[in-house]
Amino acid sequence: MTTTRREHDLLGDRDVPADAYWGVHTLRATENFPITGTPISAYPHLIDALAAVKEAAALANEELGLLEPAKAAAIVAACREIRQGALHDQFVVDVIQGGAGTSTNMNANEVVANRALELLGHAKGEYMYVHPNEDVNLSQSTNDVYPTAVKIATIFAVRGLLKAMAVLQDAFAGKSVEFRDVLKMGRTQLQDAVPMTLGQEFSAFAVMIEEDRGRLAEAVELIHEINLGATAIGTGINAPSGYAEAARRHLSAITGLPLVTAANLVEATQDCGAFVQMSGVLKRIAVKLSKSCNDLRLLSSGPRAGLGEINLPPVQAGSSIMPGKVNPVIPEVVNQVAFEVIGNDVAITMAAEAGQLQLNAFEPIILHSLSESVTHLRRACLTLAERCVKGITANTAQLRATVENSIGLVTALNPHIGYTAATEIAKEALATGRGVAELVLEKGLLPAETLAGLLRPEIVAGSGAPAA
Amino acid sequence: MTTTRREHDLLGDRDVPADAYWGVHTLRATENFPITGTPISAYPHLIDALAAVKEAAALANEELGLLEPAKAAAIVAACREIRQGALHDQFVVDVIQGGAGTSTNMNANEVVANRALELLGHAKGEYMYVHPNEDVNLSQSTNDVYPTAVKIATIFAVRGLLKAMAVLQDAFAGKSVEFRDVLKMGRTQLQDAVPMTLGQEFSAFAVMIEEDRGRLAEAVELIHEINLGATAIGTGINAPSGYAEAARRHLSAITGLPLVTAANLVEATQDCGAFVQMSGVLKRIAVKLSKSCNDLRLLSSGPRAGLGEINLPPVQAGSSIMPGKVNPVIPEVVNQVAFEVIGNDVAITMAAEAGQLQLNAFEPIILHSLSESVTHLRRACLTLAERCVKGITANTAQLRATVENSIGLVTALNPHIGYTAATEIAKEALATGRGVAELVLEKGLLPAETLAGLLRPEIVAGSGAPAA
Amino acid sequence: MTTTRREHDLLGDRDVPADAYWGVHTLRATENFPITGTPISAYPHLIDALAAVKEAAALANEELGLLEPAKAAAIVAACREIRQGALHDQFVVDVIQGGAGTSTNMNANEVVANRALELLGHAKGEYMYVHPNEDVNLSQSTNDVYPTAVKIATIFAVRGLLKAMAVLQDAFAGKSVEFRDVLKMGRTQLQDAVPMTLGQEFSAFAVMIEEDRGRLAEAVELIHEINLGATAIGTGINAPSGYAEAARRHLSAITGLPLVTAANLVEATQDCGAFVQMSGVLKRIAVKLSKSCNDLRLLSSGPRAGLGEINLPPVQAGSSIMPGKVNPVIPEVVNQVAFEVIGNDVAITMAAEAGQLQLNAFEPIILHSLSESVTHLRRACLTLAERCVKGITANTAQLRATVENSIGLVTALNPHIGYTAATEIAKEALATGRGVAELVLEKGLLPAETLAGLLRPEIVAGSGAPAA
Amino acid sequence: MTTTRREHDLLGDRDVPADAYWGVHTLRATENFPITGTPISAYPHLIDALAAVKEAAALANEELGLLEPAKAAAIVAACREIRQGALHDQFVVDVIQGGAGTSTNMNANEVVANRALELLGHAKGEYMYVHPNEDVNLSQSTNDVYPTAVKIATIFAVRGLLKAMAVLQDAFAGKSVEFRDVLKMGRTQLQDAVPMTLGQEFSAFAVMIEEDRGRLAEAVELIHEINLGATAIGTGINAPSGYAEAARRHLSAITGLPLVTAANLVEATQDCGAFVQMSGVLKRIAVKLSKSCNDLRLLSSGPRAGLGEINLPPVQAGSSIMPGKVNPVIPEVVNQVAFEVIGNDVAITMAAEAGQLQLNAFEPIILHSLSESVTHLRRACLTLAERCVKGITANTAQLRATVENSIGLVTALNPHIGYTAATEIAKEALATGRGVAELVLEKGLLPAETLAGLLRPEIVAGSGAPAA
Repeated sequence: MTTTRREHDLLGDRDVPADAYWGVHTLRATENFPITGTPISAYPHLIDALAAVKEAAALANEELGLLEPAKAAAIVAACREIRQGALHDQFVVDVIQGGAGTSTNMNANEVVANRALELLGHAKGEYMYVHPNEDVNLSQSTNDVYPTAVKIATIFAVRGLLKAMAVLQDAFAGKSVEFRDVLKMGRTQLQDAVPMTLGQEFSAFAVMIEEDRGRLAEAVELIHEINLGATAIGTGINAPSGYAEAARRHLSAITGLPLVTAANLVEATQDCGAFVQMSGVLKRIAVKLSKSCNDLRLLSSGPRAGLGEINLPPVQAGSSIMPGKVNPVIPEVVNQVAFEVIGNDVAITMAAEAGQLQLNAFEPIILHSLSESVTHLRRACLTLAERCVKGITANTAQLRATVENSIGLVTALNPHIGYTAATEIAKEALATGRGVAELVLEKGLLPAETLAGLLRPEIVAGSGAPAA
Repeated sequence: MTTTRREHDLLGDRDVPADAYWGVHTLRATENFPITGTPISAYPHLIDALAAVKEAAALANEELGLLEPAKAAAIVAACREIRQGALHDQFVVDVIQGGAGTSTNMNANEVVANRALELLGHAKGEYMYVHPNEDVNLSQSTNDVYPTAVKIATIFAVRGLLKAMAVLQDAFAGKSVEFRDVLKMGRTQLQDAVPMTLGQEFSAFAVMIEEDRGRLAEAVELIHEINLGATAIGTGINAPSGYAEAARRHLSAITGLPLVTAANLVEATQDCGAFVQMSGVLKRIAVKLSKSCNDLRLLSSGPRAGLGEINLPPVQAGSSIMPGKVNPVIPEVVNQVAFEVIGNDVAITMAAEAGQLQLNAFEPIILHSLSESVTHLRRACLTLAERCVKGITANTAQLRATVENSIGLVTALNPHIGYTAATEIAKEALATGRGVAELVLEKGLLPAETLAGLLRPEIVAGSGAPAA
Repeated sequence: MTTTRREHDLLGDRDVPADAYWGVHTLRATENFPITGTPISAYPHLIDALAAVKEAAALANEELGLLEPAKAAAIVAACREIRQGALHDQFVVDVIQGGAGTSTNMNANEVVANRALELLGHAKGEYMYVHPNEDVNLSQSTNDVYPTAVKIATIFAVRGLLKAMAVLQDAFAGKSVEFRDVLKMGRTQLQDAVPMTLGQEFSAFAVMIEEDRGRLAEAVELIHEINLGATAIGTGINAPSGYAEAARRHLSAITGLPLVTAANLVEATQDCGAFVQMSGVLKRIAVKLSKSCNDLRLLSSGPRAGLGEINLPPVQAGSSIMPGKVNPVIPEVVNQVAFEVIGNDVAITMAAEAGQLQLNAFEPIILHSLSESVTHLRRACLTLAERCVKGITANTAQLRATVENSIGLVTALNPHIGYTAATEIAKEALATGRGVAELVLEKGLLPAETLAGLLRPEIVAGSGAPAA
Repeated sequence: MTTTRREHDLLGDRDVPADAYWGVHTLRATENFPITGTPISAYPHLIDALAAVKEAAALANEELGLLEPAKAAAIVAACREIRQGALHDQFVVDVIQGGAGTSTNMNANEVVANRALELLGHAKGEYMYVHPNEDVNLSQSTNDVYPTAVKIATIFAVRGLLKAMAVLQDAFAGKSVEFRDVLKMGRTQLQDAVPMTLGQEFSAFAVMIEEDRGRLAEAVELIHEINLGATAIGTGINAPSGYAEAARRHLSAITGLPLVTAANLVEATQDCGAFVQMSGVLKRIAVKLSKSCNDLRLLSSGPRAGLGEINLPPVQAGSSIMPGKVNPVIPEVVNQVAFEVIGNDVAITMAAEAGQLQLNAFEPIILHSLSESVTHLRRACLTLAERCVKGITANTAQLRATVENSIGLVTALNPHIGYTAATEIAKEALATGRGVAELVLEKGLLPAETLAGLLRPEIVAGSGAPAA
């Protein structure tokens, strides 16, 4: 009883495990690229997208009379099984690989071919019936299959991120309503500036994410443009007339995505610009998430020797030696994801710049970095929303006290007591350490009810923004 | 006769040169920030934009009854002079400065005030008649003036870049027509792949730039959203009701730009996301310009021991010790600009991430880096177009020979002679060093005229792309 | 029969699996940080280093009379088991986590405590006998344990990289000897320059790596400085006098490393400079590896339409649609690792810059990125050596022909035929397409044997460098 | 009367201004590279270094009998004038240029030649007497001259930075002594941790810089290795035996630097590793300077609604609309320089990675970025020391109050009142808002004098660090 089967390629014969759906090309790739230890099966969106591309190609080939219906049906059936979650464990090549994704494409061709063979009643490896290259890869090249699959995978991954961002936005917006009436000092350059509401502060967090969602939605539009049908370099060599459009049509139907074929396939096959732009937008999101988390950590600093304006919900003990210490671990982990995303953007930039002539051979690291950025950002947003933002509380009394005590309050009183009086009050407050509100009342510059009126949240909030 | 005048601020008295239009705030800033030695006058778009903002504010203040007409008229007149190029040399603070642009705003306030004073018949420094802060800066804060001015400056700078990119695109497109019938081998992963035309190669360069122009035009849309009227932190403190809209209206009229006021001014005042995105798109442009220049250098390598496919026009002697050597210096300088832009993107990213609470204090480095990226890219595009691309010639005969000689040709013949014969031809060509075309003819696999037909440029170009 | 046990912490009670060696702190951390899905067990050097630190601390505590011998012995025994590979699967917290590594330290404390309990005949969770915090973490804080463990882990990981670099250096050096007599044209700016030997070209690759090994060895010296004994912020609070030195001594003995305690523990506890520098050196290595791989890909370009100077060993089929195409996949994967390392350097930089006051809370991403860079570089070096460099062959005849044919040869003949004659020959060669050697002989400018002598490899190599 | 002279090069004739010391090569370069508008004269260290290299080469050429003494003397005299500051305005080519520095070298050759001609009594342009290439550039190539000059320029620039860092270190160290007895709460993750002294906090700043100075001094050692004598690609072609050593000897004498010639000149000519490492160390410095400035801004936040622990000296008014507001503008400008340096590091990294085969054509952007980083860091350090750190004062009473009030104090009392009592006190303090010291005294857990003793600065400082 044999536990291997023999396969053949350009370099000679090799034995592969008899039960493996992958074949000799995959085997060599696993030997050639022992880099990360992370197989492409760790990227389920990519596996699904590869299967979708193979299915669309088979349907287009059948339609154009290049592939006999039975073969096409078996290939399509195999692809559907994969898209339903089967055989993902057979996608074993390392995510970082040489060759512009050839090994990923070959792995897909072999798995689909062998599963199709089984469905047709043949044994694995009987490629005379369904051939990985000649049938599954028919009218295709890695150079159009791989980037198309990466784009589809990214679109679905980004949808998940968009949803997670919406959850986070809602969490911030909820707090902005809750804190609508909480007066506080606004700060510029970490120095006391002028009054605002805590609701406005959280509203800004919500709006930032809302805007970023808009930008991300725009960026993901750009990657709906695919180069399927370009084959090797964009001239469509070895793909028949009509194939590109047929394949696109089937792929759109399978994925439910409004895909379009690039007008210039030579350009589209060598260009990674849409990935660079996508990563640039992810970086923008990371920058602002990180800024928001910096703020949350700063506002919750204390409990005694910090700003102590808000309280983050405790999610774990903070220290083994400092009793009662609780740390802002959730914002901290989000900061770190942001740093990772910003680093990934540099890796993607370098990979894109390194493309040469008709192809960019470095798309695998682009896939890897982009996928990591999207996935980690998604998880970071959900974690931040669920384990931190939703549980935030405000130290309302302390916040109001800092306003009444602050020198910055004079700026708000400026139009009411005059610049000269305001400056005098500011000077005296600074010199004596006393509060501005206290001094204004003491000096009779404003009646108490007028002052209270000026400190009503809706007045303080000014024209700045509605709370959420 | 005195050559200085005495001015006063929070920190005390200081003498400034009697003929200086700037005052004590500017003086202190020049002392505090001796960093780059580059004054903001080196950024004429910024100076013009500052003057436009001051003019718009004065008109809005007058309209709302806050500023008496004579003062307003003098301020407006001073601003117009500046926008026509006058007094730029009075903008002397260092471009990299602490304080979120306060020193730049103060410099502008002082220059406008002193020029307005002169226009009203007063001496410089007689601020009781027109005051830098109380009149010129009325209803404003650095925190809304500076980012608004930076955005307007960037919009105009980007327009220049868009034009330069169009020039470069046209140059590439012109060559794609010129080289429409030049057959060559396409390459993937630097290995001979399949035939294409040189016209397609240059068409891809043109299309890349065209797409990037589209992305840049989209990104510049985003910075038409301003926060004028936000004052210190976005609550509009010290600006009267109606001011934000009036100022925006006047600023749009002055600049001719369809500016819009951000819906949430608190968010808009602290958010640098639009700059990050703009820089990300500039990085995308840099990546693809660099890739194109890498290709030009590679294709023109030689003259004897390189690819030698194209010739770049010689623009200077390449070596003092190697007679006749000419180097691809124009693409090389463009590569370097690209590296600089990519580095600037990291600086901008870090500056944006470092914003805290209601303000980002690090906008000056964002202005500096963004301005440098836009300006250098513009010059690089024009230089590349005028001094390199337009003069490129093709080594047509050699290019055709590599096609006829190449193994990759069999891929094109595949559908015509069959995969088995193709593979045999490839093997024999590899073993003997002979050309594929030669062997195909010798073996009678195809008639000469059929082969010639298959190598016609319009056939080779395939579905890839029209030449330009 | 219960399958869980109940544990308690600051936030209340939680059930953990009865057979888990980790406890409530670890449980909460796994819930709080669902980011990468990669547990710290994927970093075996880190687990070993944590166990080494815990063992050293126990021995120091025992020595100072703080820990009773039986407890200490059990803790030490548990740590040794872990260092021998046991229980690594119990280190389950996500590698990217908030809290400066607290969760990693807590995970270690809990695993060691529960294994120690078993060794003493108690059940897991009976912390009254051996307590994770009070015993295992005695005299320690995450803030000294975690960075110390990260440093030790990095030292061992870097040793592996140094070895791999030596293997690659040897591979290049071997080729430099093999190709000692292979004449070729040197190129500057991709233009033909002057003759050299292929041995010199490979010698340069070898020397680059040798120099980088030197730099890496220096950088790793810097991380032998630890802050164990600093406890929370460097003041050594809760650690007795003499503890820091005793712990260091034991840790040195356990690890075999010449560790030193930082002179200023407050500084050492907040400073990530040594990691930044280490990453900077890894980036340097990446830059030069990438440059070398770019060269290998360029020199092996072809086979017909490229430089075709060397042949990389084929390791897998390159294309499904282009018969016989073999791609430089091994250098390509190394390029991608280089891009990743350069991106990681930016992430590490941002994390280091984000430290605040007495601590850097972002060390987990530093660990992750640094570890990834070191590990992937190690594998990339070995793969490049074994699967590419060792099998490289030279196209000697073609290389020599380009020298004889090249215009650049005149530079070498300059001193022998005079600058004027040399320039004339260059001009004629350029105009006619003929070779310089051919023209020199034809015109009788040099006897054939003199010319041959000038083209002897040892003459051409000049003072540049010995071949290896 | 003519105002131009005619010069000739490979591309034909051109008129240059009669009084220009530069010639046709420089003219073409200024036309080819209109990128930054910054001429190389803005880099005086580079001009001096170029002159030093030309002088050393002339002396070596004379010594080897290649250059007649009168010519050599004139060249040497011209170079000395330049090194004394003359003719710097004649170095007009743009700092970012294609061609690996060829235009910079040509500019130097032309200026030196024309000044030498004048010294010998000839007119400018009479190159038959002293030729820019054949005499001034004799035995040299841009490819060894330019990197050698860049290294020497960098060494001198770095010396300036090292001195500025020492000034800053001293400023911090001075404060660490001044604040030796100021008790404060240490913070980890922005949460109150355990007590320390403000002196320790400033001591940590001082030690960070001290360590970075050490690393910078090491990195600058690496760039004492030069490739002068390598000529075009490292084979020393066109340079006679003995030249490299003679030129190095003279250059060491002229500059006073212990320069060494690289063992492998082929490697040295293509390798930018030392620049990458230098930039990596500058980035390390930037990271830690930025972190220190973040801390200074945080500690001085307020005056009422911030931490308010220290006061930065006011150096300019902070706001036009908020009376009395003073901002931390000096730390802010240092932060921005840090971001710039970190961005420059990415540009340098990309430029270094882009080197191909025997040369890196992108050294001009490396020079530019490195020079900018060093110069701006130097100015930032001096500015920070003189205009900020030296004037910092402490709010001693408030700092002590936070310690006595802080929960974190219990950690310090742990060993004295027991963990159980400590935890109870912590809980009560948290619940009631009362101070730990107050509760400990009230409950009689410690006598007042014992508590006071435990809060003595020297006790609190612990083993952490001596104050400076």
